[in-house]
Amino acid sequence: MGKIYIFGHKNPDTDSIISSLVMADFEKKLGNNDVVSCRLGMLNKETEYVLNYVGVEAPELIEDLEDGQEVILVDTANPGELIPNLANVKIRKIVDHHQVLINTSYPLFYRAEPVGCTETIMYKLYKENNLKIDKKIATLMLSAIISDTLLLKSPTCTEDDKNAVKELSKIAELNYETYGLEMLKAGTDISSFTIDQILNLDAKFINLKEVKSIIAQVNTASIPEVMKMKSDLEAGMNKIIKENNLDLFMFLITDIINSNSQVIALGQKANIVEKAYGVKLENNTALLHGVVSRKKQVVPIMTENA
Amino acid sequence: MGKIYIFGHKNPDTDSIISSLVMADFEKKLGNNDVVSCRLGMLNKETEYVLNYVGVEAPELIEDLEDGQEVILVDTANPGELIPNLANVKIRKIVDHHQVLINTSYPLFYRAEPVGCTETIMYKLYKENNLKIDKKIATLMLSAIISDTLLLKSPTCTEDDKNAVKELSKIAELNYETYGLEMLKAGTDISSFTIDQILNLDAKFINLKEVKSIIAQVNTASIPEVMKMKSDLEAGMNKIIKENNLDLFMFLITDIINSNSQVIALGQKANIVEKAYGVKLENNTALLHGVVSRKKQVVPIMTENA
Repeated sequence: MGKIYIFGHKNPDTDSIISSLVMADFEKKLGNNDVVSCRLGMLNKETEYVLNYVGVEAPELIEDLEDGQEVILVDTANPGELIPNLANVKIRKIVDHHQVLINTSYPLFYRAEPVGCTETIMYKLYKENNLKIDKKIATLMLSAIISDTLLLKSPTCTEDDKNAVKELSKIAELNYETYGLEMLKAGTDISSFTIDQILNLDAKFINLKEVKSIIAQVNTASIPEVMKMKSDLEAGMNKIIKENNLDLFMFLITDIINSNSQVIALGQKANIVEKAYGVKLENNTALLHGVVSRKKQVVPIMTENA
Repeated sequence: MGKIYIFGHKNPDTDSIISSLVMADFEKKLGNNDVVSCRLGMLNKETEYVLNYVGVEAPELIEDLEDGQEVILVDTANPGELIPNLANVKIRKIVDHHQVLINTSYPLFYRAEPVGCTETIMYKLYKENNLKIDKKIATLMLSAIISDTLLLKSPTCTEDDKNAVKELSKIAELNYETYGLEMLKAGTDISSFTIDQILNLDAKFINLKEVKSIIAQVNTASIPEVMKMKSDLEAGMNKIIKENNLDLFMFLITDIINSNSQVIALGQKANIVEKAYGVKLENNTALLHGVVSRKKQVVPIMTENA
């Protein structure tokens, strides 16, 4: 049998990178040694911090695979976020916590649960298969769950995520709150990025009914620090709106310490933000109290009010 | 919270019906009492035998659901085999062993594995959740696995299926071979059916590349018994070919005791059968040695030779 390539989505976040590393460990512990941990994009600062802390190499950067190769997908089941010739490779397994957007012509192993992080499902898989999770792997898994749930504070966080963090903290011998805050803060370091890079760090094209939108997000430990760049950010957003003929560009600056988001909203449909959250945009911006999750607290409410 | 409706595919086989009953038991044991076991079609003779043997009621027959209802899908992830307004209900869970043909706009619990039967996955779910399988449920699960794997002899059967049958036999206090053969034989009783009903018992529209086909199958303990009806079957097949503008109608009469199939092939592309299996059709028929599984031993080989 040939190699099996394991990867998550393009524009990878910490969960996507770590899922690829952890799945490779899991498969090896099951006896499948010919697995290659891969990634479809650059590491972000947070992920760099984690890999450096644990002392593991990043997965191999790939753009594409030859037809007929075997793959395992983690943290996504969305062909739009994957390799161009996905239809011509053989998907052996999928482990994910997002919506189902993939079709196959053959049965496969598919494991998805509506939890906060892929690693929470991986934690269950190790347990179900009576496989030991060693200290390094536990630290990786813990990091991904902290990242996806913003230290268990995001509304996407479930009891299963909390339970996994509790158990993994013991194996990792880590105070997850202290470690997690350092990790999240490392991820907020945007000092080396251009305005365009900041706007694209975690940007998603989303249609809110008929409203063509981008909703982008950046995490920070200090909203005022990011807001210093407001006029440059707005210039960059207006350029992207024009280039993509958007109705709305919503940029969320999320305070991971206090769990609020400052929004900058531009475009002819920016008023949807006012309607959705009962706020008044002043100079294109407003504070959204308690809003941290794009998936749970932005997309549904914005769609409803679009 | 409202009711959750549990059902498998239209034209339900034993696995589909039993999965609906077993999933309801599983959910109740997890504490979700408001579940309704349903079915999208008539019971076949084999399933009737099982429900009668165990002494349980058939799931509720439904054709459709109101928009917004919550459902759990078992033994299928194929919208074409489900209710018309599937896009307007909320799918909570899917447990299946087929290809992935569904898309959702939200994350859900999805559990699929390439094993011989849905009940083999359900068996794992009970174990993973530390839930007790009682005797009646074990007998139901065992019956479904025997049905889908033809007493563990089908090439779709995996080690996981065999292991589940071994463990479930103990709980059910049953000799699975004796019981299973009786059950399979009960399912081969086609004496009360018209020719049209026999041809439609387990018929699938399948495109073999460009070749528009129906591949239908009937199980029997005696091929000659079914072949007595050959000229009537052929007349029925020719009628269906004409009505549906088919290139091929392949009717498999599968001997569940000896694991062979007699094929009757009609239509302008009947010669694909000769090419695929290296046989000569005489009076439109040939014996296919060792062929029992449409999924593994017919569709792929016929597609390759189409």
